[in-house]
Amino acid sequence: MNVFAVGIGLIGGSFMKDLKAKMPETVIYGIDVNESHLEEALELNIIDKKSSYDELHLADFVLVSIPVDVMVEELPKILDKISDDCVVCDAGSTKELICKVLDGHVKRRNYLACHPIAGTEFSGPSAAINGLFNGKANIICEVEKTAFKLQEKALSIFQLLGMRIRYMNPKAHDKHIAYVSHLSHISSFMLGKTVIEKEKNERDIFDMAGSGFESTVRLAKSSPAMWTPIFQQNKENVIETLEEYIQNLSDFKELLLKDNFEGIYNEMNNTNKIKSILKGIPLNKK
Amino acid sequence: MNVFAVGIGLIGGSFMKDLKAKMPETVIYGIDVNESHLEEALELNIIDKKSSYDELHLADFVLVSIPVDVMVEELPKILDKISDDCVVCDAGSTKELICKVLDGHVKRRNYLACHPIAGTEFSGPSAAINGLFNGKANIICEVEKTAFKLQEKALSIFQLLGMRIRYMNPKAHDKHIAYVSHLSHISSFMLGKTVIEKEKNERDIFDMAGSGFESTVRLAKSSPAMWTPIFQQNKENVIETLEEYIQNLSDFKELLLKDNFEGIYNEMNNTNKIKSILKGIPLNKK
Repeated sequence: MNVFAVGIGLIGGSFMKDLKAKMPETVIYGIDVNESHLEEALELNIIDKKSSYDELHLADFVLVSIPVDVMVEELPKILDKISDDCVVCDAGSTKELICKVLDGHVKRRNYLACHPIAGTEFSGPSAAINGLFNGKANIICEVEKTAFKLQEKALSIFQLLGMRIRYMNPKAHDKHIAYVSHLSHISSFMLGKTVIEKEKNERDIFDMAGSGFESTVRLAKSSPAMWTPIFQQNKENVIETLEEYIQNLSDFKELLLKDNFEGIYNEMNNTNKIKSILKGIPLNKK
Repeated sequence: MNVFAVGIGLIGGSFMKDLKAKMPETVIYGIDVNESHLEEALELNIIDKKSSYDELHLADFVLVSIPVDVMVEELPKILDKISDDCVVCDAGSTKELICKVLDGHVKRRNYLACHPIAGTEFSGPSAAINGLFNGKANIICEVEKTAFKLQEKALSIFQLLGMRIRYMNPKAHDKHIAYVSHLSHISSFMLGKTVIEKEKNERDIFDMAGSGFESTVRLAKSSPAMWTPIFQQNKENVIETLEEYIQNLSDFKELLLKDNFEGIYNEMNNTNKIKSILKGIPLNKK
């Protein structure tokens, strides 16, 4: 089987590492605008060959994991180049615009809209890790628009990598993911910013930071080039989550100002049920 | 040496576990209002004996790790009971009120105000872990008010457990810790709340949550009984950090509303330097 990775960073790289481990006879072709990433991926044996769109007609399976603004430009071109038996999957963190752009494309039946819920705060092929997708959810949108045999081909690969499949429409995907992923990133970036701003004048502040702080600002290490277009494409939903979050923070501040510490206790106690909710989330094993 | 743990939860328990491992001849006495925690600590060999304030005159070293509202009630009583050669340390997450309450106490020279920057989101003696304090900062306040020989006794124990000592006045401690610890907890609790509220009507939302969400809401598992009095005692500083955080989130929302994605990119890019800052934070090894 000929597999093409368009974008060979953390997601593309991790996917190919596992695929190669499970199906050693697969030939992995890498395409990336970043030449040094391609070289790195080759050295790390993540890909077998450097390639280009001119060879896409050889592909049986294509995974596209690039920033979502580039995704809407490149997916139509990729579909133009592939054979009728090839399936193209993406790994974008937004689905509505991407699905809309591809609607009506002559090769729409060769595309499967995906969002594997997996990743770390790092990027590039050197950040690729084995088993990243094992036990993780993969959200598939508009499955009915993909040719049945090509759905089967993609699903057999996702199954091999241990993914749990969930079906959802693009609108619901973008709305829900704003809450459980996009908002977390903004809360983390702005927490980092708030503390860094204070630290300008208070040099020793980070000497007092513990693992709790580290955990809440971990996502502030994420790539701005990847996240800016995600916020752009999912602007309406992200603004809605931000407004609710800011409102909850303001309400908490009001309780403090009014010395309503019973209210403060209840707020935290009610949110403690996140414990049982989090038990269901598969984590990256370190 | 006779060591007393007043409060035998995560912090007291972890401290005693390491102390016993490093100095097996130490006799550990446990005092706790929660009888089941005492029984548990005894079964787990975290303490050697159950005890009470009536035996405090036997103590060479006392560690008090209880919620900070109880701390201001109990520390004066504990100091009343100890011998002249005993040093009493606390592990409270606030320092200003505690130091103020003890100022002028006849045994003030027997008290060393401490805040070891260590912990997890769990509580109780069963949450106690070995090596929790290794490499972690321990903030000591008003060191000059503690008898020199008793400072030495306490420091030799902290050194044994691998702590890095930092000296700070209580006012600066409470201001800085509001940024790097207290605000993180509120941001996490309110993020959890925002998503749980949405989930009431959208049952499947958490199936889409990944490890990034888990990381940012981890602190929302923390104990309300421990955190409510911390926010109460550090109210002014916490409100200040909350106002700055809410302002930064609102500014971010404004950039989104104005389609200023260059601004969004810059915000995240500037905050990415948290990467190098976090490298200096010692984490709990799993």
